[in-house]
Amino acid sequence: MRKGERSTLAADTDAIITRREAASGGKHMLKVGLLGAGRIGHVHAKAISSHPDSKLVAVADVVEEAAAKLAAQYGVEARSNDAIIGDASIDAVLVATSTNTHSDLIEAATKAGKAVLCEKPVDLSLARAQACRKVAGSTKRPVMIGFNRRFDPNFATLKAAADRGEIGKSELLSITSFDPAPPPIAYVQVSGGLFRDMMIHDFDMARWIMGSTPETVTAIGSSIVDPEIGKAGDVDTAVVTLRFADGRIAVIKNSRRAVYGYDQRIEFLGSEGLLSAGNVLENTVSIATADGVVSAKPEYFFLERYMRSYSAEWAAFVEAVTKGRAVPVTLDDGVNALALAEAATRSAKGGTTVAVASVIG
Amino acid sequence: MRKGERSTLAADTDAIITRREAASGGKHMLKVGLLGAGRIGHVHAKAISSHPDSKLVAVADVVEEAAAKLAAQYGVEARSNDAIIGDASIDAVLVATSTNTHSDLIEAATKAGKAVLCEKPVDLSLARAQACRKVAGSTKRPVMIGFNRRFDPNFATLKAAADRGEIGKSELLSITSFDPAPPPIAYVQVSGGLFRDMMIHDFDMARWIMGSTPETVTAIGSSIVDPEIGKAGDVDTAVVTLRFADGRIAVIKNSRRAVYGYDQRIEFLGSEGLLSAGNVLENTVSIATADGVVSAKPEYFFLERYMRSYSAEWAAFVEAVTKGRAVPVTLDDGVNALALAEAATRSAKGGTTVAVASVIG
Amino acid sequence: MRKGERSTLAADTDAIITRREAASGGKHMLKVGLLGAGRIGHVHAKAISSHPDSKLVAVADVVEEAAAKLAAQYGVEARSNDAIIGDASIDAVLVATSTNTHSDLIEAATKAGKAVLCEKPVDLSLARAQACRKVAGSTKRPVMIGFNRRFDPNFATLKAAADRGEIGKSELLSITSFDPAPPPIAYVQVSGGLFRDMMIHDFDMARWIMGSTPETVTAIGSSIVDPEIGKAGDVDTAVVTLRFADGRIAVIKNSRRAVYGYDQRIEFLGSEGLLSAGNVLENTVSIATADGVVSAKPEYFFLERYMRSYSAEWAAFVEAVTKGRAVPVTLDDGVNALALAEAATRSAKGGTTVAVASVIG
Amino acid sequence: MRKGERSTLAADTDAIITRREAASGGKHMLKVGLLGAGRIGHVHAKAISSHPDSKLVAVADVVEEAAAKLAAQYGVEARSNDAIIGDASIDAVLVATSTNTHSDLIEAATKAGKAVLCEKPVDLSLARAQACRKVAGSTKRPVMIGFNRRFDPNFATLKAAADRGEIGKSELLSITSFDPAPPPIAYVQVSGGLFRDMMIHDFDMARWIMGSTPETVTAIGSSIVDPEIGKAGDVDTAVVTLRFADGRIAVIKNSRRAVYGYDQRIEFLGSEGLLSAGNVLENTVSIATADGVVSAKPEYFFLERYMRSYSAEWAAFVEAVTKGRAVPVTLDDGVNALALAEAATRSAKGGTTVAVASVIG
Repeated sequence: MRKGERSTLAADTDAIITRREAASGGKHMLKVGLLGAGRIGHVHAKAISSHPDSKLVAVADVVEEAAAKLAAQYGVEARSNDAIIGDASIDAVLVATSTNTHSDLIEAATKAGKAVLCEKPVDLSLARAQACRKVAGSTKRPVMIGFNRRFDPNFATLKAAADRGEIGKSELLSITSFDPAPPPIAYVQVSGGLFRDMMIHDFDMARWIMGSTPETVTAIGSSIVDPEIGKAGDVDTAVVTLRFADGRIAVIKNSRRAVYGYDQRIEFLGSEGLLSAGNVLENTVSIATADGVVSAKPEYFFLERYMRSYSAEWAAFVEAVTKGRAVPVTLDDGVNALALAEAATRSAKGGTTVAVASVIG
Repeated sequence: MRKGERSTLAADTDAIITRREAASGGKHMLKVGLLGAGRIGHVHAKAISSHPDSKLVAVADVVEEAAAKLAAQYGVEARSNDAIIGDASIDAVLVATSTNTHSDLIEAATKAGKAVLCEKPVDLSLARAQACRKVAGSTKRPVMIGFNRRFDPNFATLKAAADRGEIGKSELLSITSFDPAPPPIAYVQVSGGLFRDMMIHDFDMARWIMGSTPETVTAIGSSIVDPEIGKAGDVDTAVVTLRFADGRIAVIKNSRRAVYGYDQRIEFLGSEGLLSAGNVLENTVSIATADGVVSAKPEYFFLERYMRSYSAEWAAFVEAVTKGRAVPVTLDDGVNALALAEAATRSAKGGTTVAVASVIG
Repeated sequence: MRKGERSTLAADTDAIITRREAASGGKHMLKVGLLGAGRIGHVHAKAISSHPDSKLVAVADVVEEAAAKLAAQYGVEARSNDAIIGDASIDAVLVATSTNTHSDLIEAATKAGKAVLCEKPVDLSLARAQACRKVAGSTKRPVMIGFNRRFDPNFATLKAAADRGEIGKSELLSITSFDPAPPPIAYVQVSGGLFRDMMIHDFDMARWIMGSTPETVTAIGSSIVDPEIGKAGDVDTAVVTLRFADGRIAVIKNSRRAVYGYDQRIEFLGSEGLLSAGNVLENTVSIATADGVVSAKPEYFFLERYMRSYSAEWAAFVEAVTKGRAVPVTLDDGVNALALAEAATRSAKGGTTVAVASVIG
Repeated sequence: MRKGERSTLAADTDAIITRREAASGGKHMLKVGLLGAGRIGHVHAKAISSHPDSKLVAVADVVEEAAAKLAAQYGVEARSNDAIIGDASIDAVLVATSTNTHSDLIEAATKAGKAVLCEKPVDLSLARAQACRKVAGSTKRPVMIGFNRRFDPNFATLKAAADRGEIGKSELLSITSFDPAPPPIAYVQVSGGLFRDMMIHDFDMARWIMGSTPETVTAIGSSIVDPEIGKAGDVDTAVVTLRFADGRIAVIKNSRRAVYGYDQRIEFLGSEGLLSAGNVLENTVSIATADGVVSAKPEYFFLERYMRSYSAEWAAFVEAVTKGRAVPVTLDDGVNALALAEAATRSAKGGTTVAVASVIG
């Protein structure tokens, strides 16, 4: 974080903004179909529409009214998934449907020649995700997985500083990732469990920051936040330790409940120092009284904390697709994060450390 | 900042966002002409265009190419000031021209029946600003002055907490307001001096937060940042103390240079505590090494720090104009801030405390 | 940390200070023999001498010059361990010798009727420590183990707040405990390994804060700080997860090197919030420049960070012994912490979770 | 605050500690008489007794029981002021009596050949203090004034960093200095007023940090904390601006009440950055709940916050006296701080800037 280096980082960000604000001139606009008009679909619709080089052209959803409403808001058509995928004038699809449809849609869309940005996880089944990777890979079409946290400006700053060697040789990564409140039990029941549904983000962060896939996974989980979660066969509090081939260690802590807000922090220890990315607070105001000094809480949940990351993610996808470059988060990244989730699920149940190789099969 | 109260505040903000995101339906769109296509004109053009209930229709600038370029960017017409003011189909004008034209344009636009949002200051001459207030006032058209800092979420949170009585009876307000780097000497020479050009924002903040106009102004200034500023007859470092009728005190510190970035902080002491609004930092990352712990600097300047305040300011203007309500920052507020700047200029020169009443005349 | 509760806590501390500053009047002074005149012996000599109700009367060390020098500094006699233990006029001994002598000295001193404060760990062998517990227990003499961190004002404040229910039902405890620099290899070789030598403090903190002994221990360790440590059969970086009968989880991170200083932090998540105890910094000064904002590092090592905890520990021992109350950290606590260290050592080697019951035998 | 420089600072501190802990060997012990056995007398008695090179030998107080009690606590004699000053075996006196006796005692003690450390202020009358300076000066005996804040480790670190040039050319100094609660009205009535009694510390800090005496003083004061203070002719809230010959500015804010504790902060802006010394907090614990994040308050008052500064002040006095060096805070410093207090008192009453030269006469 020395002078010149910070400037470099800042300059990159500026460049992205400058590029985005520049009118797209005579350039071809990426025509995009959005599959899924739920909460996250709304976030993506906004990102697609706000980007100078992409254009939302159609929206689909199994709940037709949802598709119709979102389509109307942006003045585009509501269609079926098939109609969008089958439309040769559409360049790319953004998959924001329920998880059980991801693999099928990735396969269909890539076969139809589309570029794809798909929400995480690729699938709840590792085998299905691996099969999807094979099919989609054969099409040579770009597939990016929506691990949006990589595009959070704070985590990106931490990662860039580590890559510049600011903490020397890295040794120990710690990720704290707590949700503000547990999801409904109905959601928990179909979620695939905490490791596949929630910690999958942290597995990707660990692989990305450490720059490799760990060899072993050791997981401890409990259901102490809500006994209903335990009855549903899931855990709500978990600690997972990852060991890498070179001896480095990463530890991830998850809780389904942090009443003070979304707790999203990373610490990275190395031979020359410690990098920390703290929470983004609601404001910078504090009040000191006879009772203590009160300051603001972390931003409440992912829509608040990671809003900027969704537009940066979309910008990175458009940049890669329009310039014919590799996407920054691949389908392989999605499969590997899922493999860690699978290993963690087994480890938590069996009480032993699980080799990732044994899971990948 | 107790539970319920914070929720109330948060709810207000959400409501604003919800309103803005709601499509404007069949509602009348506010048609807006932008006078001035400089740096701040660009900021306003974006705010006008992004608001669901307002529409940019024309841009003017004395530098015709500037107007043409900005107009092209938004697909609108470039016209003259007169043509915009004379166009009966335009509802409102945003005045972002050079200061010496503000009063004339406010008068012309209000006479032509427009609502006006004018950048600060109203004028460099208090007498001219007072005359403008009289003329514009007679038209009964809404005129809002662009003291955007009132719309900064952090300062708004501090103000709301004080108004709720969280620090009891208020006593002492402290405003720190440092620019990252001094402006060019050519700008300093026509700026009206630090008190009218830079501290005018802080005078408005003091009046707004304290809820009244001070009785006396005591100013101390120096030119120690850049001797050229002193040669131009201005100061670059100043401390001004305001005394209110009820004995309360406000102190404002200004410097034209803080190499670490835009330093914008407020502290408000009362019988039951101290409210503080800190700087907004570039990110939440820190690095601890053998040399110390390094964290991010404040955001660099007003375009970074106050970007959100410009859109909130515009939203407040649109809300007031379309609903026929009083604007939140009046022409009278603009004239009063200017009176404090005038008093401070005299105090710094004469070495005595100046009664505001003696300045208002 | 509400008003009344904080006051209560503060009042306790004041009371302790007041008691200590009060002259001891006609009261009997606790006569103390110090076994061990090394670095930590010096710290204890000062604490014993500064307390109004205790008096240092003799010092012993295998290195006779060390004993002589420290004894001279305090104007007391240098004697052998046996001579001190055999002196009927001595009420208590403080054992600050090398670890391999702890059990023997505890047994000898308690048999001789002394009260004992012994540095951690009780022994490197769990079996030997268990035997010592049996022997010393039969004497009914008070034996306190020197887990000084319990007396750190910050950790004591966190523990008291948790016990008052400020975070509701506790769920997940996280301890970060990094040394500034690794010890000499010669020390590593006789240390018993990171889990018994360094993490033993954190095992005690976890038991103390959680209020019970965990059922299982899962440990992951690496030697990545210094390959010599690995060659000596030890690890220098480790993460241990403890699972309690009620499902609660504690995670401990240790590193032998944090170049920015002694990193000693605790976080405690519960159903109603998160308690955090941060590092104690060298000073409160920061400097903001064009390169970033630099603030002070954590205090360098345990002598700086925990100096106050040693005198508070000694005060608690004197209080318990002179009033005939139970000591706040028992020999049983020492044995249990050692059992966790033993379990962690086995877990790290075997790659499986270890049941604490299987270790206790 | 770069690596080497911080080390230098740390090394100095270590050296002081090392020197203090070294036994005084055959060296002459400074024999000290303490005049004044009130609250601050107790603080000084402890500092004198704890220093390896000084020895408390007698205590005096107009309230004889107070002297007797303190003397008994340290096993020394209670005598009269005259008896102590007249005792040729006593090397130094520490004057901690009521302010109206300071000048007389400084004169008597220096005439009797003693070295003197006298509590602030020298006198409430500038003329009397100036006369005292003349008399004491003629004796050539060392006289140090008890501006203890210069010895606070945080402020000393800030001053050292500024002197090393870390903020380049200094420009604007800001001192925040709030007491937790106003003193009794009986005290206010004989205190000499806020500027002489309370802000005198800050005037000394400003002179010390800026390295010179300002040319002009501009003061604004109010009585808004407690109307009784106003009735007693004093103010309880004040802002004073100091202008130095080179154009630099210092601003001091005082309030008699900050319900959250003793607020003692300094900021120092220069051409290359901003140095800040923050408050010392009661502990490092924070708690995040649904209501916000609560952290500890500043230490309550001067006995808590500045305890270390009193022993460092005494060590500096002993060092200077025993080595025949100049004391670090002179009687001249005491007179100059008083001159600024006098100028501020006049400025607040007259509503004009006051030239310091006009006060010194």
